[in-house]
Amino acid sequence: MKNFSFYSPTMIKFGQGSISKLNTIVMGKYSRVLLHYGGGSIKKNGVYDETMEELEKAGVKVFELGGVKPNPRLSLVREGIKLVKNNNIDLILAVGGGSVIDSAKAIALGAATEEDIWDYFLGKEKVRAALPVGVVLTIPATGSEASMGTVITNEENSLKLSVNHDILRPIFAIMDPTYTLSLPEDQTFAGVMDILSHIFERYFSNTLNVDFTDYLCEGAIKSVIKNAYSLKKDPNDYNARAEIMIAGTFAHNGLMGLGRQDDWASHLIAHQLSALYDTTHGVSLAIIFPAWMKYVYRENLDIFNKFALNIFNIADSGKSKERVALEGIEKFQSFLEKIGLPTTLKEANIPRDEFYRMADLATMQGSIGALKVLNREDVINIYKLAE
Amino acid sequence: MKNFSFYSPTMIKFGQGSISKLNTIVMGKYSRVLLHYGGGSIKKNGVYDETMEELEKAGVKVFELGGVKPNPRLSLVREGIKLVKNNNIDLILAVGGGSVIDSAKAIALGAATEEDIWDYFLGKEKVRAALPVGVVLTIPATGSEASMGTVITNEENSLKLSVNHDILRPIFAIMDPTYTLSLPEDQTFAGVMDILSHIFERYFSNTLNVDFTDYLCEGAIKSVIKNAYSLKKDPNDYNARAEIMIAGTFAHNGLMGLGRQDDWASHLIAHQLSALYDTTHGVSLAIIFPAWMKYVYRENLDIFNKFALNIFNIADSGKSKERVALEGIEKFQSFLEKIGLPTTLKEANIPRDEFYRMADLATMQGSIGALKVLNREDVINIYKLAE
Repeated sequence: MKNFSFYSPTMIKFGQGSISKLNTIVMGKYSRVLLHYGGGSIKKNGVYDETMEELEKAGVKVFELGGVKPNPRLSLVREGIKLVKNNNIDLILAVGGGSVIDSAKAIALGAATEEDIWDYFLGKEKVRAALPVGVVLTIPATGSEASMGTVITNEENSLKLSVNHDILRPIFAIMDPTYTLSLPEDQTFAGVMDILSHIFERYFSNTLNVDFTDYLCEGAIKSVIKNAYSLKKDPNDYNARAEIMIAGTFAHNGLMGLGRQDDWASHLIAHQLSALYDTTHGVSLAIIFPAWMKYVYRENLDIFNKFALNIFNIADSGKSKERVALEGIEKFQSFLEKIGLPTTLKEANIPRDEFYRMADLATMQGSIGALKVLNREDVINIYKLAE
Repeated sequence: MKNFSFYSPTMIKFGQGSISKLNTIVMGKYSRVLLHYGGGSIKKNGVYDETMEELEKAGVKVFELGGVKPNPRLSLVREGIKLVKNNNIDLILAVGGGSVIDSAKAIALGAATEEDIWDYFLGKEKVRAALPVGVVLTIPATGSEASMGTVITNEENSLKLSVNHDILRPIFAIMDPTYTLSLPEDQTFAGVMDILSHIFERYFSNTLNVDFTDYLCEGAIKSVIKNAYSLKKDPNDYNARAEIMIAGTFAHNGLMGLGRQDDWASHLIAHQLSALYDTTHGVSLAIIFPAWMKYVYRENLDIFNKFALNIFNIADSGKSKERVALEGIEKFQSFLEKIGLPTTLKEANIPRDEFYRMADLATMQGSIGALKVLNREDVINIYKLAE
């Protein structure tokens, strides 16, 4: 087991009706709130009205900035920073999914500095302060509601970069699974893949003697797969929605990776698809992860055997470790297909003529990954495996 | 799944050498620190010297209060409160195990009020404020390093009572498994039972549709059992010590119980043994839990079957659910015996003539438990099953 730090201070209010806690959380602590949201779905499903009502009860002045898109844009972040600075806003309330929360975190960071926000993503500036961010979560996927990270796309140069710092962890997250009952199928299952990917980046590790987190990761993966199938059958299953929502948070607050070397190569490889073709993050991951698995599994047959045996109950008698590992990967890919996600570039209608450029971008800061350290050539091979 | 709140803000620094982080954590934030500890083992294993060195580097003034005993006493808490108030101390640093941390929490609570500290344990006063508590953990067991609870024994009337509030969660916990390598066998395995008990109180629940925490609990239980066996073979196994230590924290910070109705009857029943006979907490639990299981399992055969199948891989074909459940309980009791814990009152040389008095105390505030709600008669029956 490796040494680690763990800090996950986000206060979570989970369950049906939990938005009714918002006013007591906010009241007396904050006075000027930026309500940050996406394309307006929260105005249709009632979340906007409920939130406004709670903020009114709390007696705060509300400023609004909607329009966050998937793969949130730097330009809107800049607009938010100006708005926050000009109005002495003291809480950024993200109402939506991961894109809205990531955008809110970037605004919170940029509003607490005189430096240019993009310099933090380029690593030119060190994170020192940020305004508090609160969350009303409506799409479980990125885990951003309790994570330390924000990923922003600079639409001028198609760069998709991240900042990670404990100070960016939201102060509170209100999570009512009933908001997610109306999520369309594509968003639901892209979210499922996103959640699984956060566990995978930690689970597929060369670190030995990590039983506790091995078991935690495997349990979380099994829970997500089981409940994804439930949602495929019945999108209105509250308990399955709740299971996916809770798994999403703990998949990415750091818990699953305690004491482990994590990987993140697949994320970097997938990010380039989203940056270039605006592919939904979870879809990019559904395409890249099986390819990455097939490319790297020989590096650590043990962990890929555990995955096959403990998640998919592959019968292993008389089979080579390699065979068992591959069957596990196949079962996983077949799970993705069953819930309706594309697992190749072709299926997703993504062009296959920019592998070199994407590999350049993915390895811009050097080789990536940990289970197998990948250089530019490796990344090109993974894109090819994903064709 | 039930609605829930979750708040676990304790910053954890885990691993070999992690005490070296203490000075940067403390420096500039606190100026007058109460170093609170137990019987002096920390002076033998070097932790005291290391801690003092770090506090010196941090430039804080240190006050000392040692002498915390297992089942920590109200009288020492009162002494600590006076010391803190008279010296304007701003951080209580608990160096030791659960008893020291619980004592520190009670001091932190009492020092922030003019009311009598015991009134908080009697439920006469509401928790509103507490000084910050930091932890250097040397005995993994109670999970108090990240939990919301403190349990104190009033030696005047043998009452052992608790206060639970988020404000009592420690600010930080430094956890270096190397400190635990020298723990004697009895303390090590009493700690193991304590950790398991915290998971059991959450796992054995009637709440349905809680896959995520079912899996988490089962993973944590399997990890603790596996690594307890490793420590039985080799007490110097750093990784096994680390696995037990990490499980101890997450067994009791609330994570394992998210969305579940928890129980806590066994704790109340076991507490009376510790209060009357000063039995080590983990030993009391090793005696009471198998008896409780045997008394209640018919109430929820499903969860006891999951326990038998998923933890102990009991072969269930051709067996009744009742048989499978009982075999799981037997396997668990046999595990306790293998790691050297007594599982009956007789084995532990505890008198068996105060069952009525203990049952009175356990049910002082009414019936207890949730999986099966227990009255005074039930509690007497459980003591009898534990004879």
